[in-house]
Amino acid sequence: MGEFDLIARYFTRPTPRAALGVGDDCALLQPAPGTQLAISSDMLVEGRHFFADVDPAALGHKALAVNLSDLAACGATPMAFTLALALPGVNETWLQGFSQGLLALADAHGCELVGGDTTQGPLNICITVFGEVPVVHGKSQALLRSGARAGDDVYVSGTLGDARLALEALRGHIALPAELLAKARQRLERPTPRVALGQALRGVASAALDISDGLLGDLQHLLKASGVGATLDTSIAIHLLADCAHTACGKDLISFENRLELVLAGGDDYELAFTAPVSARQAVQAAARQADTPVTRIGCIDAEPGLRLQDAEGQHLSGAFASFDHFA
Amino acid sequence: MGEFDLIARYFTRPTPRAALGVGDDCALLQPAPGTQLAISSDMLVEGRHFFADVDPAALGHKALAVNLSDLAACGATPMAFTLALALPGVNETWLQGFSQGLLALADAHGCELVGGDTTQGPLNICITVFGEVPVVHGKSQALLRSGARAGDDVYVSGTLGDARLALEALRGHIALPAELLAKARQRLERPTPRVALGQALRGVASAALDISDGLLGDLQHLLKASGVGATLDTSIAIHLLADCAHTACGKDLISFENRLELVLAGGDDYELAFTAPVSARQAVQAAARQADTPVTRIGCIDAEPGLRLQDAEGQHLSGAFASFDHFA
Repeated sequence: MGEFDLIARYFTRPTPRAALGVGDDCALLQPAPGTQLAISSDMLVEGRHFFADVDPAALGHKALAVNLSDLAACGATPMAFTLALALPGVNETWLQGFSQGLLALADAHGCELVGGDTTQGPLNICITVFGEVPVVHGKSQALLRSGARAGDDVYVSGTLGDARLALEALRGHIALPAELLAKARQRLERPTPRVALGQALRGVASAALDISDGLLGDLQHLLKASGVGATLDTSIAIHLLADCAHTACGKDLISFENRLELVLAGGDDYELAFTAPVSARQAVQAAARQADTPVTRIGCIDAEPGLRLQDAEGQHLSGAFASFDHFA
Repeated sequence: MGEFDLIARYFTRPTPRAALGVGDDCALLQPAPGTQLAISSDMLVEGRHFFADVDPAALGHKALAVNLSDLAACGATPMAFTLALALPGVNETWLQGFSQGLLALADAHGCELVGGDTTQGPLNICITVFGEVPVVHGKSQALLRSGARAGDDVYVSGTLGDARLALEALRGHIALPAELLAKARQRLERPTPRVALGQALRGVASAALDISDGLLGDLQHLLKASGVGATLDTSIAIHLLADCAHTACGKDLISFENRLELVLAGGDDYELAFTAPVSARQAVQAAARQADTPVTRIGCIDAEPGLRLQDAEGQHLSGAFASFDHFA
């Protein structure tokens, strides 16, 4: 199968919203008047971001999900994406699964595949995603990392830790019963981008970002961009522990320290961390209900730079919870 | 050096035109009112699109040039791009050269680096580029592949064949004097995207595309998209032969057949092929002058599908000039 047949068979779909989709030198998008275009790009490499034997449908899902998560963090409404794909060879079973997983998530978010590239090479998936953000009275409604202010609350969506739990089990570092691993693996391989929550938080949150490299590490990017610090209550944060990790803890399969580490530095969760003024607490809960996504308030923003962890008694913990850095 | 330091040192630049550049979950672009956004994405893989020992500055140039060429084919004005980069490791000499070559071309076209991704993996460069196209009285001014009509002229910009000549020499298939190879290699490794010509052809050309895989192969995409055929005069097309190929031919380093093949199916030239009504001949020449880019009229569009080659006497040639297909 040639490159053009491959694109035609697996990656060419109607694009009713885009002015022009796959098949020309460029795709054409026409953002609505008075909107900004939010853009994010993520590259997934075999052995680094996924195992060679991963279900191709899950991989297709994840490749788009991690990009949609960036749009969510910005409060953008998904519009379209491009897919650049390097493949070692043409494996139609793989392509069928991959495109099915990819396009099912795309359809669920009304995000059209408008173009890209296909070539031969070590497996590499690069998706660039486009979303719309309204501009109201000349002011962009995009959620940025830089808007947190001293006194704001700090929130996290959903739950944390199951993706890393699965990763550690797949790496052979911990043993999990098959059923528990299968469930945790879903969180690792099929993350849910918090797109609806991101949109609902426009005009409510003061700053936001997605947690792909671990809560503490990513939150520090937000603090740095905002020129502030934060104090988190670990006795509350621990309630963010995801189902499988909670079960594994109950069965003594992981220790208390590991449990806290999964929450604070697990990574690959694709939840949102965000800040909002105290006056917006009701609005935050309303946004969470509207998006059908739980959010937990875990701390507050301080004027003093740095990230501090407290236990229930207000005692400071020394945190050595490193974040994931692709070149560390 | 960590991922974030690497991005800060080599790939973070001021972005006066973009609403938001590198450093948040998304970049933000605000296209001018009444414009469309043209988008294209290309992935370059070591061993497939470039040799492992290529000068990193040339590689940085080419990675963006092939994308700008797609904008040129659309008649779009470059705005911004994202860069996703998989690197086997951190080599600062390489990064310095690559980013210098990349950003020099970006600066020359006012095309801002607004975001992307960096990870570890087999060397892979994925750029997604964004350009603006005006919409006049509700009609997009983008040059598409689908606008060619029977009776239109067929044109090609610049010259063809030197990139493939260099490739064949580097592959050891032909022998070239060092000076000639060095010159031809410039065309292979530092192609010139015809951005100014593409913009000047808005409202003049009826269809256009860039020639990255060879003239005949690429032209057939245009013919198919337009539902037409074409007849090319090879006695005129041969004058498209680029300088080095011309010299190599004069020295009997390549044969007549190879010479024609370089023009018709060489590939990697990144010139534009386009069509325009006979009534626009003066306007085409004016656009060429405005863009300071020569164009040559090499044939005409027919109602009958298919691509026919004629010699100076109007005799049909049977063409077996295959185009480059990444999975053929």
